[in-house]
Amino acid sequence: MTDRSPLAPAAFPPLPSIAGVTLRTARAGYKAWDRCDLTYVELDAGTAVAGVTTQSKCPSPEVEWCRDAIPLGSARALVVNAGNANAFTGHRGRAAVEAIAAKVANHLGCLPSDIFVSSTGVIGVPLPIDKAEAGLEAAFTAAPCGWEEAATTIGTTDTYPKGAHVSAMIGDTRVELVGIIKGSGMIAPDMATMLGYIFTNAAIEPTLLQHMLSAANRKSFSCITVDSDTSTSDTVLAFATGKAGHAPITSMDDAGADAFHAALHDLCRQLAHLVVRDGEGATKFIDIMVEGAESDASAHRIALSIANSPLVKTAIAGEDANWGRIVMAVGKAGEPADRDTLSIRFGATQVATGGLAVEGYDEAPVAAHLKGQDIQIGVDLGLGEGRAQVWTCDLTHGYISINADYRS
Amino acid sequence: MTDRSPLAPAAFPPLPSIAGVTLRTARAGYKAWDRCDLTYVELDAGTAVAGVTTQSKCPSPEVEWCRDAIPLGSARALVVNAGNANAFTGHRGRAAVEAIAAKVANHLGCLPSDIFVSSTGVIGVPLPIDKAEAGLEAAFTAAPCGWEEAATTIGTTDTYPKGAHVSAMIGDTRVELVGIIKGSGMIAPDMATMLGYIFTNAAIEPTLLQHMLSAANRKSFSCITVDSDTSTSDTVLAFATGKAGHAPITSMDDAGADAFHAALHDLCRQLAHLVVRDGEGATKFIDIMVEGAESDASAHRIALSIANSPLVKTAIAGEDANWGRIVMAVGKAGEPADRDTLSIRFGATQVATGGLAVEGYDEAPVAAHLKGQDIQIGVDLGLGEGRAQVWTCDLTHGYISINADYRS
Repeated sequence: MTDRSPLAPAAFPPLPSIAGVTLRTARAGYKAWDRCDLTYVELDAGTAVAGVTTQSKCPSPEVEWCRDAIPLGSARALVVNAGNANAFTGHRGRAAVEAIAAKVANHLGCLPSDIFVSSTGVIGVPLPIDKAEAGLEAAFTAAPCGWEEAATTIGTTDTYPKGAHVSAMIGDTRVELVGIIKGSGMIAPDMATMLGYIFTNAAIEPTLLQHMLSAANRKSFSCITVDSDTSTSDTVLAFATGKAGHAPITSMDDAGADAFHAALHDLCRQLAHLVVRDGEGATKFIDIMVEGAESDASAHRIALSIANSPLVKTAIAGEDANWGRIVMAVGKAGEPADRDTLSIRFGATQVATGGLAVEGYDEAPVAAHLKGQDIQIGVDLGLGEGRAQVWTCDLTHGYISINADYRS
Repeated sequence: MTDRSPLAPAAFPPLPSIAGVTLRTARAGYKAWDRCDLTYVELDAGTAVAGVTTQSKCPSPEVEWCRDAIPLGSARALVVNAGNANAFTGHRGRAAVEAIAAKVANHLGCLPSDIFVSSTGVIGVPLPIDKAEAGLEAAFTAAPCGWEEAATTIGTTDTYPKGAHVSAMIGDTRVELVGIIKGSGMIAPDMATMLGYIFTNAAIEPTLLQHMLSAANRKSFSCITVDSDTSTSDTVLAFATGKAGHAPITSMDDAGADAFHAALHDLCRQLAHLVVRDGEGATKFIDIMVEGAESDASAHRIALSIANSPLVKTAIAGEDANWGRIVMAVGKAGEPADRDTLSIRFGATQVATGGLAVEGYDEAPVAAHLKGQDIQIGVDLGLGEGRAQVWTCDLTHGYISINADYRS
């Protein structure tokens, strides 16, 4: 990995093990690099699964495979290949996914549809089946590893491994939720995930788990953007092993369902923020809150218009309080907006209201706020009750450097 | 002006004068710079006008003024202020536009609604009325100037003045169309114009001129993008003085109407390309042709998704034949697309077809094509007859440098 993002957390957090989840890594050698690049996660029988995948109309065969398998609700293993996205590779790409699932299913004595597969990296090169199979052989016999090693192994251009942990009480039982995620570019709604995996020892019926994950996704992974580009491979999967010992949760009316749902949402937001903080070239984390819109959906579109504007993102990179570019981005969203009721703030400082700069506007506190790493932009449209919050990063020379020669 | 864009034409072209059009410039001093920044164009009585303006929901008062005046169909003068966009300035901004129109109307003895006003530059600072009025006084008595001086004076971050010329035959009469335009960033459909002004000695009834300009705009200014950002001020106005002496054209069925329409479209496309060639930081001009879509509108949205993708634009900047990013951009457009019927070419070289890279793909001719300044990307969706063509530029360190400290 290259230098850690300046927005990275100080260290990888301590994460508890999850009963029923065994992590292993191996070297498949998808690229000419000196690191593990295949992650193999064994899940005990009885594990429930839910997932959300990219909205791309040209998804990878892994995404198509997962879309087919998720509704069946059960999982026994996850394989993540790093360094080759296997996307846009036609029947050869599909064959690689089928070969991986078959090999793991044979190893575990389960159905291929219980095996979940993701790949990430360059697009257009079929995943070499021989390397995948050799990598799996190595993984089957490797010693189990910890979360940090797995989080590192699923990464590609990531500058640091990403993991997070929350707990929830279901009745008298404390359950744990651990997530790892990778992603730093080609990230945008809908849905803005890259590859994320959540593991819990809670017992949650798969349909309900899917409901909770979809809802959490709408307020977390679908609210982040780095560069407005949408991956062909974006996938978030949640696995619930049910080892915690409480009575299975099958309905939102069950005791503990709300607590688990809130914890899952919290975990998804933490993971989403970790991705933004590793946005390619990022030097500022930007929190954008839009209020007073005609609807939540309208607020969301306006917030994303701001978050995806190159001119807003370069202004923040330059620590430039150029709020006119916020006006521009609101105006171009195509949503109901009225210049004369619009208010804008940076941090806690109101800069414009009612169609013009505030009387006696003092740029000093705004300039001070923009020198920090955590930037807040607030917009009040003054039209209704709609609100939305999204997160992004600034656009810098680092982004250009990373992406103008990614394949080289 | 800073260094000319590497994509700039060798020189400003020779442009004929247009009977009934008198150009003058002056120094209003909107910024602390040593250059003319007010352009004043007098138009003889009887000049017809048409116009298209930004789709922004937060337009400048100049745009609102022009939107009100265009349907009245007649023009006597154009004033363009450079260095201050006067956008998001509330009633004070509106007052500045009204003061300018009133002063010029008084000078010419016409209605204020015959005066067209544009401003371009920083957003959020009211245009100083005293400077505008003093600038106009100076302009009224200045010696007439040529097209290059006017094209230079309307510019801001432009690195070269932009003008173009076409002719058309209306019966036995040759008519001339001249256009000048400014713009290099904050450029996107719809509509992607910056400030453009077209002058012709043809006699075209205003409603018909509007019809022709709107149609030409859809295939020119609305087909370019630099950074996906939409200005609060985008405006294109067309003025027809009617001095050429032919019988006025009032219907598309009139002799010469088709020829004039074609010439106007040609001129708009030339002007639009000049803007892209001055895209902030641009080093490559990118022509994107999408065919085989379900409809022209669908093809247009897919083409813009490619043209606005930061990952595509940085790959081209890096002369990297990373066609997987084209697949990504097609997939994220949300339009009907089928991975297995999709074909992609760079220049004349097919790189992918039918869901995977072409058999025996040789990257050498593609790499050679990408080293040039004029890049062609072709996409065939293999679904229908829809097609669209758009133009953009690459995304480079230059864009970041220009926009991270624009106000400084």
